[in-house]
Amino acid sequence: MIGLDYFLRSHITAILIPSFNTHSFPLHQSILSMLHELFASDLKDLDAVIQSRCQSYVHLIPELSLHLMMAGGKRIRPLLTLLSYDLLKDQNAPDIRPQAIALGAAVEFIHCATLLHDDVIDKSTTRRGKPTANHVWGNSASILVGDFLFAQAFYLMLMADDRSVLGVLAKATAAIAEGEVFQLGMIHNVDMGFEACDKIMTAKTSSLFVAACEVGARLAKASEAMIHALKTYGHYLGLVFQIRDDVLDYIGLEETLGKHVGDDFFERKVTLPVLYAYQSQEPQDCSDAVFWQTHFQNHTNPSQDKAAFDKACRLMSQSGAFEKCYALCDEYALLAQEALLIVPESSFKQHLLAVIDYCKIRHH
Amino acid sequence: MIGLDYFLRSHITAILIPSFNTHSFPLHQSILSMLHELFASDLKDLDAVIQSRCQSYVHLIPELSLHLMMAGGKRIRPLLTLLSYDLLKDQNAPDIRPQAIALGAAVEFIHCATLLHDDVIDKSTTRRGKPTANHVWGNSASILVGDFLFAQAFYLMLMADDRSVLGVLAKATAAIAEGEVFQLGMIHNVDMGFEACDKIMTAKTSSLFVAACEVGARLAKASEAMIHALKTYGHYLGLVFQIRDDVLDYIGLEETLGKHVGDDFFERKVTLPVLYAYQSQEPQDCSDAVFWQTHFQNHTNPSQDKAAFDKACRLMSQSGAFEKCYALCDEYALLAQEALLIVPESSFKQHLLAVIDYCKIRHH
Repeated sequence: MIGLDYFLRSHITAILIPSFNTHSFPLHQSILSMLHELFASDLKDLDAVIQSRCQSYVHLIPELSLHLMMAGGKRIRPLLTLLSYDLLKDQNAPDIRPQAIALGAAVEFIHCATLLHDDVIDKSTTRRGKPTANHVWGNSASILVGDFLFAQAFYLMLMADDRSVLGVLAKATAAIAEGEVFQLGMIHNVDMGFEACDKIMTAKTSSLFVAACEVGARLAKASEAMIHALKTYGHYLGLVFQIRDDVLDYIGLEETLGKHVGDDFFERKVTLPVLYAYQSQEPQDCSDAVFWQTHFQNHTNPSQDKAAFDKACRLMSQSGAFEKCYALCDEYALLAQEALLIVPESSFKQHLLAVIDYCKIRHH
Repeated sequence: MIGLDYFLRSHITAILIPSFNTHSFPLHQSILSMLHELFASDLKDLDAVIQSRCQSYVHLIPELSLHLMMAGGKRIRPLLTLLSYDLLKDQNAPDIRPQAIALGAAVEFIHCATLLHDDVIDKSTTRRGKPTANHVWGNSASILVGDFLFAQAFYLMLMADDRSVLGVLAKATAAIAEGEVFQLGMIHNVDMGFEACDKIMTAKTSSLFVAACEVGARLAKASEAMIHALKTYGHYLGLVFQIRDDVLDYIGLEETLGKHVGDDFFERKVTLPVLYAYQSQEPQDCSDAVFWQTHFQNHTNPSQDKAAFDKACRLMSQSGAFEKCYALCDEYALLAQEALLIVPESSFKQHLLAVIDYCKIRHH
């Protein structure tokens, strides 16, 4: 599944980023830098919108929200909105760029609101290389500022003239919350199976990727066929992003990742690499099965047992769990790519393809 | 300030509720029952909308959200939306009742989302006479289902054809969160003063009362003068409601209140009756001042000291703190009433006036 396709795609990326082979930058950083350069002016405007909508007479609100929102996030989701808009907009129609930026900001506000609440729920202490907001200002402030960010997202959403975009972000927000509650019910359940895992990834992650693409496409007044193509692209891209995330939780380096490795493991969250390792065991490996069950079903001991984490990583490597994750990533990446087949050629299309590569190989 | 005005108003209520003098029902219950009877069909439709928008493939979501939303809440806020709409709508215009109900439901969803999050923050164990959702299903589920309810509110809001209503609820949601964060910064601060107290009540409570009235009035295509009148009414009504709430936290009966008395006191939340008691002290009462300071500034001991609570209640009674609260309630009630002077006479106007009485004298 990788082979020629991967070679061709990397080749495309190499053409798009001429410096890629000469620089010492790894490919994933080059893709992100290219996009950030290309959209530098839009991202500056996006930052200004974010800064302005975080203001309040209560000083803690901008302090806490900008601590997260200006901490060097990748801005992948707003970039998807801008790319989808640029890709599909009618060149003769008036440019409504500020609306695309407002919608991109709305998507980023929803994303950051969910991050604030997730970090409270997961008792996380580090995010984007900094102490989490809940760690610095406590759970109560994080919950309430999360609510404030949701409200700002919905306010920003109203900047769009097109009524059809309004429901998209409300539905995505509901879907994310549903996915998180569903995941909550699956914690400790190492027997949850691949279907439940797919459901969680789709709801928690893909739904906002889909919405980010959809609002951009709708703002561009694209045809339903094009909107469908972008949504399909967003769906598979989100899955690639999430699988990579789940793998990085085991193989990532803390200094690149900006957060602790092993968080999912210690929070007893069963993710795709765990399922692959757990389900690939031979009947005679019953001691390993017991290891996975004992660890994930442990409700009483939240301690960070480093030896258990090392054993988990070793079992994953030995069982080929990571390779299976990479293979599924490749499969989804191909489906994301294929979704764009009906979209006319343009540099924006090539950038969307490059984003697939980025999500597949990113290190943070 | 009470005297004749109060007599006349009670008289109006007595006319509106013929059974009021013969029944053994107290007045506040009669007003609520009258409104619930009058809007029985709308409230049934409202319940159906609530039930339907709480559904999800994740069973915990309807279970948790309906545990709160169908626990016999008073539906004051959606009633304000319906009353404002009925009061101001053009009799010749097509009836868009389903939109008014959807907006009323959106207001109730926002209210309940904030309740779920508040109960997590306050570690509350009882609400509406039942164990709180956080007590039954834990903090994580309550936070996430709160987010789901916010999303449903914004989805419902889109049912309104009128674009001008859309920003109203987003702004109110932001204002509530701002008020809550502001209050968070004032916990333990017995010297916060009346201005800060007013700011908290306005943001936390009045803003949603204002929004509930405003969306009803805007849906009715009322003039800006009428919309302003209803917003002013909602503002003062919200203050009356909140002051009564703060008093009930000290003088209420748990079985009527449906929640614990003394919650604010034990959570070290400084409210209006505390400020009156604390600030009314003579210089020689320095031991009482020390009592208030010691209690509210105590960060380390969250224990429920019943003797301290009893002493607080006694000091409040002795200092006339409750009477001062009632007097301010009367003043705000009068301002709410005066706001409606420009509104043409109708039974709906009389009902809005009766709601002021209800908020002033309610026991739960």
